[in-house]
Amino acid sequence: MSGNSFGSQLKLTTFGESHGVAIGGILEGFPAGISIDFEAVQKALDRRKPGQSELTTDRKESDTVQFLSGIFEGKSLGTPIGFIIPNTNQKSKDYDALKDVYRPSHADYSWDAKYGSRDHRGGGRSSARETACRVVGGALAAQLMAEVKVSAFVQAVGPISISVPYTELDLSKVDASRIRCPHPETASSMEDYILKLKEEGDSAGGVIQCVITGVPAGWGEPVFDKLHAELGKAMLSINAVKGFEYGSGFAGTELKGSELNDSIESVGVNRTNHSGGIQGGISNGEDIYFRVAFKPIASIKKKQSTVNKSGEQVDLEIQGRHDPTVLPRAVPIVEAMAQLTLADFMLRAKTNRI
Amino acid sequence: MSGNSFGSQLKLTTFGESHGVAIGGILEGFPAGISIDFEAVQKALDRRKPGQSELTTDRKESDTVQFLSGIFEGKSLGTPIGFIIPNTNQKSKDYDALKDVYRPSHADYSWDAKYGSRDHRGGGRSSARETACRVVGGALAAQLMAEVKVSAFVQAVGPISISVPYTELDLSKVDASRIRCPHPETASSMEDYILKLKEEGDSAGGVIQCVITGVPAGWGEPVFDKLHAELGKAMLSINAVKGFEYGSGFAGTELKGSELNDSIESVGVNRTNHSGGIQGGISNGEDIYFRVAFKPIASIKKKQSTVNKSGEQVDLEIQGRHDPTVLPRAVPIVEAMAQLTLADFMLRAKTNRI
Amino acid sequence: MSGNSFGSQLKLTTFGESHGVAIGGILEGFPAGISIDFEAVQKALDRRKPGQSELTTDRKESDTVQFLSGIFEGKSLGTPIGFIIPNTNQKSKDYDALKDVYRPSHADYSWDAKYGSRDHRGGGRSSARETACRVVGGALAAQLMAEVKVSAFVQAVGPISISVPYTELDLSKVDASRIRCPHPETASSMEDYILKLKEEGDSAGGVIQCVITGVPAGWGEPVFDKLHAELGKAMLSINAVKGFEYGSGFAGTELKGSELNDSIESVGVNRTNHSGGIQGGISNGEDIYFRVAFKPIASIKKKQSTVNKSGEQVDLEIQGRHDPTVLPRAVPIVEAMAQLTLADFMLRAKTNRI
Amino acid sequence: MSGNSFGSQLKLTTFGESHGVAIGGILEGFPAGISIDFEAVQKALDRRKPGQSELTTDRKESDTVQFLSGIFEGKSLGTPIGFIIPNTNQKSKDYDALKDVYRPSHADYSWDAKYGSRDHRGGGRSSARETACRVVGGALAAQLMAEVKVSAFVQAVGPISISVPYTELDLSKVDASRIRCPHPETASSMEDYILKLKEEGDSAGGVIQCVITGVPAGWGEPVFDKLHAELGKAMLSINAVKGFEYGSGFAGTELKGSELNDSIESVGVNRTNHSGGIQGGISNGEDIYFRVAFKPIASIKKKQSTVNKSGEQVDLEIQGRHDPTVLPRAVPIVEAMAQLTLADFMLRAKTNRI
Repeated sequence: MSGNSFGSQLKLTTFGESHGVAIGGILEGFPAGISIDFEAVQKALDRRKPGQSELTTDRKESDTVQFLSGIFEGKSLGTPIGFIIPNTNQKSKDYDALKDVYRPSHADYSWDAKYGSRDHRGGGRSSARETACRVVGGALAAQLMAEVKVSAFVQAVGPISISVPYTELDLSKVDASRIRCPHPETASSMEDYILKLKEEGDSAGGVIQCVITGVPAGWGEPVFDKLHAELGKAMLSINAVKGFEYGSGFAGTELKGSELNDSIESVGVNRTNHSGGIQGGISNGEDIYFRVAFKPIASIKKKQSTVNKSGEQVDLEIQGRHDPTVLPRAVPIVEAMAQLTLADFMLRAKTNRI
Repeated sequence: MSGNSFGSQLKLTTFGESHGVAIGGILEGFPAGISIDFEAVQKALDRRKPGQSELTTDRKESDTVQFLSGIFEGKSLGTPIGFIIPNTNQKSKDYDALKDVYRPSHADYSWDAKYGSRDHRGGGRSSARETACRVVGGALAAQLMAEVKVSAFVQAVGPISISVPYTELDLSKVDASRIRCPHPETASSMEDYILKLKEEGDSAGGVIQCVITGVPAGWGEPVFDKLHAELGKAMLSINAVKGFEYGSGFAGTELKGSELNDSIESVGVNRTNHSGGIQGGISNGEDIYFRVAFKPIASIKKKQSTVNKSGEQVDLEIQGRHDPTVLPRAVPIVEAMAQLTLADFMLRAKTNRI
Repeated sequence: MSGNSFGSQLKLTTFGESHGVAIGGILEGFPAGISIDFEAVQKALDRRKPGQSELTTDRKESDTVQFLSGIFEGKSLGTPIGFIIPNTNQKSKDYDALKDVYRPSHADYSWDAKYGSRDHRGGGRSSARETACRVVGGALAAQLMAEVKVSAFVQAVGPISISVPYTELDLSKVDASRIRCPHPETASSMEDYILKLKEEGDSAGGVIQCVITGVPAGWGEPVFDKLHAELGKAMLSINAVKGFEYGSGFAGTELKGSELNDSIESVGVNRTNHSGGIQGGISNGEDIYFRVAFKPIASIKKKQSTVNKSGEQVDLEIQGRHDPTVLPRAVPIVEAMAQLTLADFMLRAKTNRI
Repeated sequence: MSGNSFGSQLKLTTFGESHGVAIGGILEGFPAGISIDFEAVQKALDRRKPGQSELTTDRKESDTVQFLSGIFEGKSLGTPIGFIIPNTNQKSKDYDALKDVYRPSHADYSWDAKYGSRDHRGGGRSSARETACRVVGGALAAQLMAEVKVSAFVQAVGPISISVPYTELDLSKVDASRIRCPHPETASSMEDYILKLKEEGDSAGGVIQCVITGVPAGWGEPVFDKLHAELGKAMLSINAVKGFEYGSGFAGTELKGSELNDSIESVGVNRTNHSGGIQGGISNGEDIYFRVAFKPIASIKKKQSTVNKSGEQVDLEIQGRHDPTVLPRAVPIVEAMAQLTLADFMLRAKTNRI
């Protein structure tokens, strides 16, 4: 069974190689009668597109989505929403030199081992370009949940991180900095750090935190499809992600039960929220928050040692226009995957009782 | 759609409340003609069962699995393997006091919010007792992959952790300590720490690491069902888990691309393994390793403040026989979920090419 | 992917070989808070069980279902309903002679070709005994749709058939005859015909019609999961079924569009119902009706010519206790599969609009 | 869960309304390394397209498929194959008069009841235009099974039918007649009959038979996903289909077991083939054959009585360019759905044993 779909009730299936004719997808299970806000979709895509600032790649891609079906006179029909994003700026030539070379820490070798061949141009299907389709899906999913607000931001870049909890941040200010960090001084340090690495032909990793408000109690489908398990899968399916934690996460493992338990103030209200808004895999009505670890992008200009298909040692200096960090562009991707996950659970919850 | 199944090609569906007649499951997609090692299944269950040492609950449960179908004359038939584990030691009375009380950091309130009611006895469906079925499924799945070895162990308990990498540990010695930590001195400190908390009526969290050898290159189904994304979901679906990281994980986000990239020595062989055996969501033939964060168990004897269904404040001192830590018993559960995930991908890979 | 599940929102997965320890299943997606009518389930099973009259096999099986989970204090929990039906009357010895012989028009050879082996006792997994689990699932599904009435009956046995449309029959009288035909004279002829064949060691086929009232407009999920497409699959998945038609069926192909179109009297009301209550794959609020073709049962006492696994010609006289016709016992199976199909669509429709 | 996908291992998901921007689909699970025969795909589409002869509608649609992904340098990549077919000849104006009118025996009312609205232009999503995507999928699926030959033909039109069994027909001659009937005299009568109805503003139904050779023993996944059950669902999901039978079908229900059983000549070889190449839901290596009942097309020029949304009685004379019969154009659709079904089972069988 193919792994190109996400969601069970609201299901996004994507297709497309980074340098093929187009990428695109089908969003199934979107209920009928919803007025579609097309601008919101395009705005989400614009936050993901390359070329936004000197912190990202120079590539210019318009990433304009074309809706082909499922919407009529501005409203959803209940039928599948098909859409495409043409690949307009495909400098395939840039990649000819990479045809037979395995790039370190990329999917080149594992992909070849699996399928016997691959579209080597720009990573083909393994390129993060595919995530543009997720952003379209997420922006539509968000329109099913007016009361839910999903806010992601860059919490750490390399060794530099925000030192205050999210509750002390103004999450409406995320886009005020190019790095999408709502803590101005930290943002400034992060940007300096990235620009220095860019100059060195190197790249930076970091952590994105995501905060979700407005989810009612009752979403999530134990025992396997726990809300945080699907959120975790959603995040881990994003390129370059190496870890996921929610609520008290890894740090909380060092505490005692008596320290970590959220004591209950009244029905549905806890005094603390170490649980991260999810208990037993089901939302409890409080804020949901989680952190996602992104490794530094593997495509760097610095010379690296590798081999080609014939097994010959070659030195590699990756040309082309690569991001020094994936983080600011990954913020809308994290949000999109969270939106898809939540909307799916919202719909799934509709049959828990009749 | 219900969330009670795991896997797509090899699918485990479980049922059962902790204090109902029985728990059980169906394992579908298990290929025909495999000689079943029943002892291996029982041995895995015995590693998970309560009452193994003073580090775990005093409850004694035999947890004997009864296979009902899918196996004939010792071999798999290719048909669904149905099995049950009777609930033999159900002291439901112990739970009468909890009928209307919401336990802090448990699934009581969220479950009620979702379904309108719940089986309150011992957590019902939200109890970790359900994981016994996963252990059965995992022990069977393992028998499809003779060459694959899955080894989990306790790496940290509270603030105490092993300080050396897994490559310096003897993973055949995991069961030499009651806490299932293969580093003897650390194991000893961990046990002291837990026993102290037990005395205080408190509980401890920690981290389980899992190392997998023998997986060939080519398993994993991008773009959504990446190998590490499904492993992450598998782990996050286990009770009390708050985080998952693989390869370089969260720590690696602080490094530069030039530091973290695994330089390639020859086709299929890297000089380092920061990638954790997975690149682009597909196994690359090297060791797979990941870490799983477990919070301290929420059921503690210490007095806690909470409310009942009517919203009245009540003090709660949870009686009954609870574990001071979930960690040693969670080791076989982590292994089982990894085995189910891997065997599923092994079967899925069979149609990548024809 | 295994083919042992039916339904997407309300999903029944069954397991079990006819002469194994037990058959059983898991019903997932059953909403919480429904008071379960256990007697209704057992009554449906009793209508399917062998030994009801001389028209069926002499085998006596109690077919008592044991619910293991998903129900608490008489109400559904929203969790998976696990159940088993022990195989109490397994005369496996009866089948030893058949171990290496391929029975004509049975699944013996095709099953061996697929899996390399099979449980030969009583057909193993290919036995119609498995349908007892479907009857359990259907009887539960029916309890989700109080307004929907599913009535199946035997319309034809061999060349003998009811000559009037269902609208002229009293469907509350189906069980008044042993053959489950609500037209008394036809029933009598049918029974005579079957008893004569039984004496000859032969078997009879026939047609079951099913009529469904009370389904509101709007159930069914085009374009692939049309209501009649899933009903068709449901019926064709029953042992011995060779055909399915709904509404005007095969006979209607001979008419002209102007003759067959249902002219519309008022919104939601047609003057005729050649459409069979389904238009474009979606229920339109009128009666749904369809016919199911059952071949004569393949197990006959008459001597037949066949081969064994070694390819040697052997004569076969099937001993054991077989039904001369499957029809009266198939009536509750047809109903069960219709109930499962309809309840699934009822739940699926809950997310068409929000 | 949406009903817009077909298949589990090889999965086709389609999207598109008949008068939207484009229709299209994603074919997932197509193995890597297959050289794609693009001409074969276009040829199949050409057999389905309107305007082929005076037996079909006058509408001219080029129906040119554009592949967007999943194929690189002429070979499949193992990634999703995305494709679109632009809607080039959308005379939406033709349908303005129908905006508020329910057409008899169409999906207009049931669709409105389900979703609250619909794209009324040309039937929108309920239009048979969607089947062009199935033909693309089927033509690709066929390329995975070089040894399998799927041949459909028109066996009956209204009361006129071929009187000899398929074994006496030359199935390479199906396209020799415009009606796609390989029996020349019958074809001629059929065409006369259709042209007469066309003149009257009426429409004809009929039966398509399909014969499949080259399927090895072992395809099909009991107990629910029997080969004939999925074939039946596949056929019943095609617009205007009212019935499905395979092997001995409805006619065989009148025979005795001793007459109908296929006596076995040698291992894997029967003397007759009443079973239709499928036993117990699994192919047995012999010819698979089945019949599909198509009702006369509901869009007729003759005046009909109906109502509009407000409940007012209106007379309806459907203008526009409609087919007098769906049969010759449905032949490639039947083949496509059979090809998709079979290729799916071929891939599913790959994990029955390891």
